[in-house]
Amino acid sequence: MRILGIDPGIAIVGYGVIDAQRGQFRLVSMGASRTPTGIPVEKRIEMVYDDICELIDTYKPDCMACEELFFNTNQKTAIAVAEARGVILLAAMKKNIEFFEYTPLQVKQSVVGYGRAEKKQVMEMVKMFLHLDKVPRLDDTADALALAICHAHASESAIQSFYNQKKERLL
Amino acid sequence: MRILGIDPGIAIVGYGVIDAQRGQFRLVSMGASRTPTGIPVEKRIEMVYDDICELIDTYKPDCMACEELFFNTNQKTAIAVAEARGVILLAAMKKNIEFFEYTPLQVKQSVVGYGRAEKKQVMEMVKMFLHLDKVPRLDDTADALALAICHAHASESAIQSFYNQKKERLL
Repeated sequence: MRILGIDPGIAIVGYGVIDAQRGQFRLVSMGASRTPTGIPVEKRIEMVYDDICELIDTYKPDCMACEELFFNTNQKTAIAVAEARGVILLAAMKKNIEFFEYTPLQVKQSVVGYGRAEKKQVMEMVKMFLHLDKVPRLDDTADALALAICHAHASESAIQSFYNQKKERLL
Repeated sequence: MRILGIDPGIAIVGYGVIDAQRGQFRLVSMGASRTPTGIPVEKRIEMVYDDICELIDTYKPDCMACEELFFNTNQKTAIAVAEARGVILLAAMKKNIEFFEYTPLQVKQSVVGYGRAEKKQVMEMVKMFLHLDKVPRLDDTADALALAICHAHASESAIQSFYNQKKERLL
């Protein structure tokens, strides 16, 4: 299964593409889409949409795992980030790939093993799972890869529980 | 000039299309795009995008006037509304029409004459400006029409001040 992890944003959208099979992961691509400041927000949102569509066309993932948003801090930025996330969801719909979302807590629980893990621990686990030489330079990229790994874990648990259920029914 | 006014939302997106020329307005169309509850938010967001694209294709407006968002109340809904607004902006970009945004305060100031006007007063002014028999049934539709009128006023002020400036230069 090929997963596109997305850390949504308006200035920087982190992304990571991984292949996941039976608990093993392989890095396909990682990076970030950036939009310049000083241009209208609607232009930046269009850039985000075009970049995500291009990523999907290039890497043909089976699904997208995106971070769920919570608004606590800067409301002005938060609105733009949510608007950008809207077009990211739309890209998944228009390109016909499945969409999943996870909270930062779920990602930490899945990747490190507990929800109150620090960012550095998440990055180290991403590095380990994907056999990287070093942790990704950008936090946004590391977060996107962590989201992809989280989704792989969640899917495998789902498959596992499906087979367990089947087994139960057959017994 | 043909203006598409949009009151963004996730359950209901109000819209109003008006023709504006030298302070005179004509209603072209008004209504609301609705998305059903109980289906994933990404599907509802895609519906909003498709509906707005269809509106632009049908009525071929020159520009879109959309309400600027502020988050005060329900954060869960606020995120979905901002996501929907993201795809509304994207529709304007993809269909190559100009995008403008106004705060509720600006709309009230422009349509009624003062920023602390009540909703009922805005609706009555919308009815008067557009020569309607009665006020629109939905608040969302009335708000969208008010946004379109607000943009017409703003554009005419801009044109007026442009000519005034020219006159000054010629004198």
